[in-house]
Amino acid sequence: MTRLFNDPAAFADEMTEGFADAAARWVQRVPGGVVRATAADEPTVALVVGGGSGHYPAFGGLVGPGLAHGAAMGNLFASPSAQQVYSVAKAADQGRGVLLSYGNYAGDVLHFTQAQDRLNAEGHDVRTVLVTDDVWSAPADQQEKRRGIAGDLVVFKIAGAAAEAGMDLDDVERLARHANARTRSFGVAFGGCTMPGADAPLFEVPKGRMAVGLGIHGEPGIDEVDIPTAEGLAEMFVAKLLEELPDGVTVAGSRVVPLLNGLGSVKSEELFVVYRTVHRLLDEAGATVVEPEVGELCTSFDMAGCSLTLLWLDDELERLWAAPADSHGYRKGAVAPQRRVEVHVDEEDAQLPIGPASEASRALGDVIASALADVAQALDDAADELGRIDRVAGDGDHGIGMQRGSHAARDAGRRASEAGAGAQTVLAHAAEAWSDKAGGTSGAIWAEILKTVGTALTDDEAVTAQRVADGVRAASDAVRAFGKAEVGDKTMVDAIVPFAETLSAEVAAGRRLGDAWAAATDAAEAAARSTADLVATLGRARSHGEKSIGTPDPGAVSFALVCRTVHRAFVDAPATT
Amino acid sequence: MTRLFNDPAAFADEMTEGFADAAARWVQRVPGGVVRATAADEPTVALVVGGGSGHYPAFGGLVGPGLAHGAAMGNLFASPSAQQVYSVAKAADQGRGVLLSYGNYAGDVLHFTQAQDRLNAEGHDVRTVLVTDDVWSAPADQQEKRRGIAGDLVVFKIAGAAAEAGMDLDDVERLARHANARTRSFGVAFGGCTMPGADAPLFEVPKGRMAVGLGIHGEPGIDEVDIPTAEGLAEMFVAKLLEELPDGVTVAGSRVVPLLNGLGSVKSEELFVVYRTVHRLLDEAGATVVEPEVGELCTSFDMAGCSLTLLWLDDELERLWAAPADSHGYRKGAVAPQRRVEVHVDEEDAQLPIGPASEASRALGDVIASALADVAQALDDAADELGRIDRVAGDGDHGIGMQRGSHAARDAGRRASEAGAGAQTVLAHAAEAWSDKAGGTSGAIWAEILKTVGTALTDDEAVTAQRVADGVRAASDAVRAFGKAEVGDKTMVDAIVPFAETLSAEVAAGRRLGDAWAAATDAAEAAARSTADLVATLGRARSHGEKSIGTPDPGAVSFALVCRTVHRAFVDAPATT
Repeated sequence: MTRLFNDPAAFADEMTEGFADAAARWVQRVPGGVVRATAADEPTVALVVGGGSGHYPAFGGLVGPGLAHGAAMGNLFASPSAQQVYSVAKAADQGRGVLLSYGNYAGDVLHFTQAQDRLNAEGHDVRTVLVTDDVWSAPADQQEKRRGIAGDLVVFKIAGAAAEAGMDLDDVERLARHANARTRSFGVAFGGCTMPGADAPLFEVPKGRMAVGLGIHGEPGIDEVDIPTAEGLAEMFVAKLLEELPDGVTVAGSRVVPLLNGLGSVKSEELFVVYRTVHRLLDEAGATVVEPEVGELCTSFDMAGCSLTLLWLDDELERLWAAPADSHGYRKGAVAPQRRVEVHVDEEDAQLPIGPASEASRALGDVIASALADVAQALDDAADELGRIDRVAGDGDHGIGMQRGSHAARDAGRRASEAGAGAQTVLAHAAEAWSDKAGGTSGAIWAEILKTVGTALTDDEAVTAQRVADGVRAASDAVRAFGKAEVGDKTMVDAIVPFAETLSAEVAAGRRLGDAWAAATDAAEAAARSTADLVATLGRARSHGEKSIGTPDPGAVSFALVCRTVHRAFVDAPATT
Repeated sequence: MTRLFNDPAAFADEMTEGFADAAARWVQRVPGGVVRATAADEPTVALVVGGGSGHYPAFGGLVGPGLAHGAAMGNLFASPSAQQVYSVAKAADQGRGVLLSYGNYAGDVLHFTQAQDRLNAEGHDVRTVLVTDDVWSAPADQQEKRRGIAGDLVVFKIAGAAAEAGMDLDDVERLARHANARTRSFGVAFGGCTMPGADAPLFEVPKGRMAVGLGIHGEPGIDEVDIPTAEGLAEMFVAKLLEELPDGVTVAGSRVVPLLNGLGSVKSEELFVVYRTVHRLLDEAGATVVEPEVGELCTSFDMAGCSLTLLWLDDELERLWAAPADSHGYRKGAVAPQRRVEVHVDEEDAQLPIGPASEASRALGDVIASALADVAQALDDAADELGRIDRVAGDGDHGIGMQRGSHAARDAGRRASEAGAGAQTVLAHAAEAWSDKAGGTSGAIWAEILKTVGTALTDDEAVTAQRVADGVRAASDAVRAFGKAEVGDKTMVDAIVPFAETLSAEVAAGRRLGDAWAAATDAAEAAARSTADLVATLGRARSHGEKSIGTPDPGAVSFALVCRTVHRAFVDAPATT
């Protein structure tokens, strides 16, 4: 479990700060992540990687000569925002184009794609190669649906070496795609990590058992078996990966790179014992092992698990795999000395853009900015009470996190509105600021809600009750997908689901938005009261020494509070009907 | 905990095998450990490091250009034998002398010193620099009593760079000593590792608490406090280390290398958050941070803990710290390409030597060889029963381990005796073989017993009852020190202590050795019966679902069995009176 932190909400920021100090020989900070602190003599294609934090050496630890040029570093296990990716990629671009490469997760795809669209629109040549190496995450004929795990390193290494060799963006993209097509991974887990400040691990596997194919964030696996011997695990790994060879590969006579990756708590000594058999089995199958890697290549905090990745080489891939690389978290061979450079980031590149908007949408943006100010005020008033509930139910920081996020959202929303932004853009700016300053899961969830509702409102179309209801429903779906919670789990989902359903039903029944919102708020408040009651019971039970009563969080309570506050803003706002 | 293994007794061997496969670009196996797979153009001083296994990258992971030339790799957390050190050092020596460097632990000092004496006697120039960086393990005015922890890497790095630069043994030794004198470490722990096949961690720290100054194998610390914040821990680390500066160092204006080391389960992300404050505090104190290291530099399987090491630089140390290095577990900068070499180890270098012996001692050696054969036979007969007891009490491998060890000891003892060895040498060969083949704690303990008794018997003096009693008493002390167990803990200590005391008392009372041995055996058997009774109770309790009844091991039972068997050998042997 994670034991050392200050404010859990500040963990990712402080981690990035400490990392940049520790890795100053390789990286420098830019808004959204890090880029290289050095440059080659000639400009090259820039490889920009990224994803959630908590996977060291992925992703900042892989920035340096022969590897990535920049890494967008999101919050813990949370995709970086489009703005972060944009900022890092723009700082990394040397005029020869940018390859974005990252593991195939919905949140990452969403945000990296938004950044890519924006950069392409601005005249940068930006391409994407997704890493999809995890054989258990989708069938073989749907490789495009597979997750990326330790295969990330393989694709990054090949693309980074191709860029370093001076190849153009077409070739770097082609080789990264080729490397991904020839890379397969198989992971197992014995237990999940415990995030900073959390009470319990992300997932648990019964003692003595092993989850097969389980994802690095606890995504479901395909089977659970007794923990095998080291030999048994090596046999399981190799048998499956030899069953699923990339097109055109036959084992006998092949050259192959095995990467045996520890996720955090499976240590080098165990990995070497497993590797001993992996090496023998590949050898017996007639393959030649080339420059293997055994160690922590893509982790998940202190998750207990490991994975085997096989990269099936051809001559071109082998040259690139053997090429030198030098980053904080991955070093190989002798890299030629490079000169230090200092990257200057334009202030405005670190900001979300403000596009054109209709007059009606700008007016709505102003209403939203006012509503955000009301929400911040309401949360100030309620912060002590939210903190009190969270001290019984969680770690006590919910009130502070909501305050910090809503203040930042208020300020960013107001600035955007004053700059002429439409409804979608005001909410996008507010979302970015909320997530940035609040951190933590609730910060990410609130950013998701604001952004999703904003997408439904757009920057040019007239607002309708239907559009608001659709946006809220999409936000509700996004929150459920994000937190993997269901109604009854005593989280914000308990409130947002009935809120969204009631709002849709009332709007469908032809009621005015203000009335529909009021009815929906009633439904959310009923859920919030149920959580608050449980928390009160829990408080009493805890003081009587009981521990197994579940862990409600105050998300439903603060959600209902926000809905009620926004309702007042709607009632006062003639623009919405 | 360690989850992936095959036979726990084979873990260290299989780990070394897998490591050598994975790290074939850097190392090749020799009996006792690994040496470099490459050589520089000109011969250099050879740096040989080593210690118990379980501390990756220490020690095999630190072999390569710019670092060590060889590593003696002992069993898990157990010193390598003198023979292992001898074999590795001899293979590593390039004719310019050998520096042995390792952490200051009694077992390591014993075995490395024996190897050094033997190598020096054979004409090699071999010196030693102990690493003593752990500030909590002894007061400041007794630095020579301090343990070595992550400071190992500092001393090895400086010595390795000095050797690589072509310096002679005097300079390499001087600089290693200088680096050690300027290196201080402070460690904390939240919980111990669980060894392969073990039921419980090596030590436990109450939840939410932190042991201050606790050693990496669970050696007692100096305090226990609530887990502080990351900032609090950084402040604790830096304050203490700035309090205890090496001679001639003042903080302001100094150049210092911080090494923030994770012991296994404290992951990079947490270390970066802690490092952020370490960096700031050093900066605020007026010191300039130079090329820091944050990561896993010296581990203890998956122990939850971390340490801060400070190396206070001068110009000479800074040049050596900045020099390139390239090993499986530690890489820095660009090392010039080296040529691959294959080391040939003389068969006889891998064997313990057989020195001159008196005729009487050779006769006694023959008696001992026969007794070892009887012991192997007795353990064959009892293996099932010992396994049955151990399946209740432990992991069920005790019988197999004792068989494997005693067979190897029988064969090695017989070979030595036939080659004319005296009593001490026969027992030394038997001990080496037992430890080598049995592995595990019981293998190491039995090797210690045989070796210690052998030392008392010598290769030239006549055997007396007093000499035997003294040897057994020394062995009893060694076993207690080794396992940190006391009488009543239901381990072999329960049997060996009354055995040794009774033997000494009976001999002091003037009884013949055979009679004294019989009386001592009775005492050992009484202890063994008590263990066996407890195991029977435990078996019943376990089947009734109770778990907290303690974990006796069958060591006392097998010890008594060996004593009884040896008694028969004594009674038949007219040489001993």
